[in-house]
Amino acid sequence: MSNNLSGIFPPLITPFVDDELAIDKLNRNIRKYERRELSGYVLFGSNGESVFLTRDEKIQIISTVREHTKKILIAGTGLDSIKDTINLTNDASEKGADFALLITPSFFKSEMKHHTFLNYYTKVAERVMIPVIIYNVPKFTNVNIEPETIIELAMHPNIVGLKDSTENTSRISEIVATVPESFKVIVGTASVLYPGLTAGAVGGILALANIAPDECLQLYNLFLAGKNKEALELQNKMIPVNRAVTSKYGVAGLKAAMDILGYDGGSPRMPLEPLSEAQVIQLKIILKTALLQE
Amino acid sequence: MSNNLSGIFPPLITPFVDDELAIDKLNRNIRKYERRELSGYVLFGSNGESVFLTRDEKIQIISTVREHTKKILIAGTGLDSIKDTINLTNDASEKGADFALLITPSFFKSEMKHHTFLNYYTKVAERVMIPVIIYNVPKFTNVNIEPETIIELAMHPNIVGLKDSTENTSRISEIVATVPESFKVIVGTASVLYPGLTAGAVGGILALANIAPDECLQLYNLFLAGKNKEALELQNKMIPVNRAVTSKYGVAGLKAAMDILGYDGGSPRMPLEPLSEAQVIQLKIILKTALLQE
Amino acid sequence: MSNNLSGIFPPLITPFVDDELAIDKLNRNIRKYERRELSGYVLFGSNGESVFLTRDEKIQIISTVREHTKKILIAGTGLDSIKDTINLTNDASEKGADFALLITPSFFKSEMKHHTFLNYYTKVAERVMIPVIIYNVPKFTNVNIEPETIIELAMHPNIVGLKDSTENTSRISEIVATVPESFKVIVGTASVLYPGLTAGAVGGILALANIAPDECLQLYNLFLAGKNKEALELQNKMIPVNRAVTSKYGVAGLKAAMDILGYDGGSPRMPLEPLSEAQVIQLKIILKTALLQE
Amino acid sequence: MSNNLSGIFPPLITPFVDDELAIDKLNRNIRKYERRELSGYVLFGSNGESVFLTRDEKIQIISTVREHTKKILIAGTGLDSIKDTINLTNDASEKGADFALLITPSFFKSEMKHHTFLNYYTKVAERVMIPVIIYNVPKFTNVNIEPETIIELAMHPNIVGLKDSTENTSRISEIVATVPESFKVIVGTASVLYPGLTAGAVGGILALANIAPDECLQLYNLFLAGKNKEALELQNKMIPVNRAVTSKYGVAGLKAAMDILGYDGGSPRMPLEPLSEAQVIQLKIILKTALLQE
Repeated sequence: MSNNLSGIFPPLITPFVDDELAIDKLNRNIRKYERRELSGYVLFGSNGESVFLTRDEKIQIISTVREHTKKILIAGTGLDSIKDTINLTNDASEKGADFALLITPSFFKSEMKHHTFLNYYTKVAERVMIPVIIYNVPKFTNVNIEPETIIELAMHPNIVGLKDSTENTSRISEIVATVPESFKVIVGTASVLYPGLTAGAVGGILALANIAPDECLQLYNLFLAGKNKEALELQNKMIPVNRAVTSKYGVAGLKAAMDILGYDGGSPRMPLEPLSEAQVIQLKIILKTALLQE
Repeated sequence: MSNNLSGIFPPLITPFVDDELAIDKLNRNIRKYERRELSGYVLFGSNGESVFLTRDEKIQIISTVREHTKKILIAGTGLDSIKDTINLTNDASEKGADFALLITPSFFKSEMKHHTFLNYYTKVAERVMIPVIIYNVPKFTNVNIEPETIIELAMHPNIVGLKDSTENTSRISEIVATVPESFKVIVGTASVLYPGLTAGAVGGILALANIAPDECLQLYNLFLAGKNKEALELQNKMIPVNRAVTSKYGVAGLKAAMDILGYDGGSPRMPLEPLSEAQVIQLKIILKTALLQE
Repeated sequence: MSNNLSGIFPPLITPFVDDELAIDKLNRNIRKYERRELSGYVLFGSNGESVFLTRDEKIQIISTVREHTKKILIAGTGLDSIKDTINLTNDASEKGADFALLITPSFFKSEMKHHTFLNYYTKVAERVMIPVIIYNVPKFTNVNIEPETIIELAMHPNIVGLKDSTENTSRISEIVATVPESFKVIVGTASVLYPGLTAGAVGGILALANIAPDECLQLYNLFLAGKNKEALELQNKMIPVNRAVTSKYGVAGLKAAMDILGYDGGSPRMPLEPLSEAQVIQLKIILKTALLQE
Repeated sequence: MSNNLSGIFPPLITPFVDDELAIDKLNRNIRKYERRELSGYVLFGSNGESVFLTRDEKIQIISTVREHTKKILIAGTGLDSIKDTINLTNDASEKGADFALLITPSFFKSEMKHHTFLNYYTKVAERVMIPVIIYNVPKFTNVNIEPETIIELAMHPNIVGLKDSTENTSRISEIVATVPESFKVIVGTASVLYPGLTAGAVGGILALANIAPDECLQLYNLFLAGKNKEALELQNKMIPVNRAVTSKYGVAGLKAAMDILGYDGGSPRMPLEPLSEAQVIQLKIILKTALLQE
C-alpha cells in the first residue's frame, strides 16, 4: 500500500451497552460515515477507550469493521511492552488493519528520551507487517517525543507518519521541513486543523469527525482550494464544539454529543461515568450555537 | 488470611537475558532473600518492569516464585481495564498470590477523580478472590488519589491497604488517623521509611530492599524498639543510595546495583537501556560511601 | 547573634482595610502572640502577601513590628533581582530584621539550577548585613533547590538555614545529615511538622501558627520531650485544619480563620478575593471538628 | 493614539557590562533596528531580563530609548502588586511608553483564575494613562489565562490587546473570532508566527526579531501578500534558530547570537551565566545553517 495517509479520519468511539461491547451500534455509526468522503477510520484511539478494551474485544472490532468498509483502517495497537505491541499489531494486520498507530510508551516517564524512543519504534517497526504511525499525545501520556527523534525515525522504511495531538503547530512545521515526503504528519485535534494544514500536515485524525464529519471535510477541502478566509471562519466555529467533546467533557461528552446528533454513543465504560443531565443540556446549547444541530 | 501486612517487602526486579525472562536468576535472588526476615515479596511492582511483561510471563513468574517461598506474595495486577484487572488478579490468585496491588488507573488523567476511583476499586474488589491494596505512585501515573477517597475505599471489606509512593508523609498521618485499624498503610519508598513509620505506616514496599534488605529490616526494627536516634541515622545513610537506584538511575540503576552487590540484576528490558560504564562507576562510589559494600 | 533558629515562628499575615495596610490590626495580632513562647515572627512570607506589598509598606511593617517585640524577626526580602534583594535586605536589617528569608529566584525556571542558585545566594549573602535563610517553596515558584545545592551553600558563613516548604521530609534527613550543625533546617508547613522534626529539623515557620500557636508549640514540646505518640496524635489533628488554611482555601482561608478565632484577619488584598459565605461556614466546621474552637 | 498594534516588534534585550546597565550598547542596537520597518519596540519583556532590573534602571531605559525613536514603545510594567503596577506604568507613560504590557500575576498560582484576572486587569486598566496589553507566558509564570477571560477583558476600553506566548494557535483563533476588532492579538514567539497570522493575529513580539529583524518582517509581508508557500518555507527555516535562542539556550543564547551577528549582546545579568564556549560554537553552527550569517 502506498502511503496514502491524507484527509480526514474519525477515531471511532466504542459503543457499550451495560458495559459490554455493542458491535451493532458501532456498525450503525460506520454505515453513516461510509456515505462521506472520509479517508478511513482509526480504531482504538484514545477516545475509542482502548485502555478499557480487552485484547479479544480489539480483535473482534477490527474484524467487524473490516467487513463494513474498504477504506483505510488504522489500528491503535501500541503498548509499553514491545512484545505485546508486535503481537497485537500483527494480529490486527491479519484481521485487516492497514496501519498501526503506536502511542509513545510512557510508564517510565523520566526514561522516555531520544534513545528509548528510537529503540522502541525501530524494534517494533522491524517486526510488524504493516506500516507504523507514531502517536504523540502528551495530555494522556505526560511524555513528549521531540521533533529530532521523529525526524530520525522518519528515515525508517516502515515508519510512515506521525499523529501529533499537541496544539503546537510549530512542531509540524519543523518536522515537515526535514522529513522525506513519504512521511506524513497528521493533526490530532480539530482545534488546530487549519493552522496544522498550513504548517504542512496532510490531514487530521479528529475526535470531532465522529460528530461533525462534514464540517471537518469541508474545512479540509476549503484549505485545499486555497480558500483561507472561509477555512479560518469554519475553524473558529469548530473550536468551542471541539473543546466541549475533548478537554471539557472528555469521552463522555463525545459520546453524549453522538447521541444528541443521531449517532450511537451511549455511556463510556466503567470506571468513567456518563455526563450528568445538566452537562447534557450545556452540551446541547454548545452544539446548537455552533449550528451543528437545528 | 488475616491482614498481616507489615514489615519489609522487596518489590522484586525481573531479570532478563537477551531480553527474555530469566526465571532461574529470579529464583537465585529469592533464595538469598529467603534467609532474611522479610515479610514477603511484591511481584510486578513498577521496578519489576511489569509494563514490559506479557500476561503469560506474569503468570509464569507467580507460579515459580510461589514454589520458592511460603511468605506473603503481593502481585501487581492493576490495569486501566476493569475486566483485564479482575481476570489477571484471579489468575494470579490461583497461582498463589495473596494480595493484589492495584495501581491507580491513569490514562484519562483529568477524569481520574474521587468517583472514578471509587468505581474502579469497588468494582474490582467485589469480583476478585484476594484482598486489594491500593497503589498510589504519581511519579509514574501523574495521577494522585486523595486521602478522602482512600478513607472511603478503606470501608470496603476487600480493600485492605495502601502502598503510598509519594514522599509526603502527611498523607499517611491523615489516612491512618481515620481508617479502621484493619486497613494498613505501607510506605512505597525507602527515602521516607522512618518518617512514614512515625506517621503510622506499618511497613515498606521498598525498591531498596532488593539490594539492602538487611538495612531496611534494621531500620524497621530500630523503629519498633523505639530507638529513634539510631533509626534516623540509618535513614539518613540510606537516602543517597535510595535516590541512586530510583530517581537518579531508575530501574537500570537498581539492576546494576544488584549486580555490584552479588545479586542477579542484568539489563532492563528494551526499550530501556543499561547504565553506561561511567554511570556504573558513579554508582559503585555511592554504594561504597554508604558502606553497603566493602 | 548566634544562630538561635529553633522553635515555632508564625509567618504573619498582613491585615488590610479597604485594600490599605492596617498596621493597628497587625499589632493587635502580635500582642496576642507575644504572650506565647513563640521564637519570633516571619514578615513577608508567602502568606504575608508580600508580592502585593510595596517596598515602602514593607519597611513600615518591619519598623512597627520591631517596636512591639524583642523576639527574632525574619524578613522575607528575596526578589529575582540580586540588586533589589541586597538593597531591601539591608534596609530591613536597619529597621530591625534579624534574618533575611530569601525565596529562590524563579522567573527563568529552566535556568534555575545548581550554579545559578550558588551565584544568587552567594552574591547576596556576601553583601547583606544579616544572615540569610534559603526559602524553598515549589508550590509557588515551580522551582526546586536540590539538597546538593543547599549542602554547598551551607558552607557559606552568612547562609545559616533553610525553610523547606515541600512536604518531602527525606530532603530534610538528607540535608541535616551533611551540613554543619550551625546550619538549621526549618519545616515550612504544619502538615509535616512532626515527621520533619524527627528528620532533624529544629522548628517550624508555619502558616498554621497564626491561628493555632498553642497547638504548634505543644507539638514541638511533645517532640522535645520524646512523647512521640502524643505528638503524632496532635499532628494528625492538625492536618485537616492546616490543609483548609493552606492548599484548600489559601491566604483568604487563613485570614477568615483568624477572624473566626478572634484574631484580625480580614480580606486578602486585590486581586485575591475573600472566601464566600458558604466557604466560611465550611471552614468553621473544619475548625470546630479539630477542637480549635469551642 | 489609535490602536495601531500590528507588525513586528523586537522585545529588546538589555546589555550589561560588568553586570551594570550599558545604555550605550542598547542605543547602538536601536540604531540598527531603526533602519528597518519594525513597528516599534518592547522594553522589559521576559528576554529583556526585566526581573533583574531595578525600578530606576527601568525608568532610565525608557527615557533613553524614547529619545532614539518615534516608533511605538511598549513597556513591560506588570508586577503581582496592583499598586506597584499602576505606579510603574504611569511613570513609564510619562517617560514616553505608549502601551503597557502586563504579564499575568502568578505568585498565588492556584488562585489565578477567571475572577482574579478580571480583578487585576480591570483595576489596573482603570488607573493607568496608557492602554494595556495582556501578556500570557505560561512557560515563565506557570499560569494560563483562558480565552474566556481574555474575551471578557477585551470589552474594557483600556485593554487593547494580547501577547500570547504559548505555541497554541487555536487560542488565537478562538479569541479573534469573538473580540471586537479594536482588540489585537499578537504572537509571542517566532515559532508560530505564520500559523498565528493565519489564525488572526496582527503581528509578533518576537525574541527572534532582535537577531533576525529582516526575516521576521519578510515573513510578515509574505503573509500579507498572500504568498503562503513562501511564508511557510521561511517559517520552517526560522524554527531551529528560534528554538536555539529561546527554549534551548535562553536569554544567554539570544545575547550570544547578537554578538555573533554584529549586535551588542554580552552576558546576561547574574545569577544567569553566559554560554560556554562549546555552546557558542554550537550556536554558530545553527545560525550558519539557517543562512542568517555567511
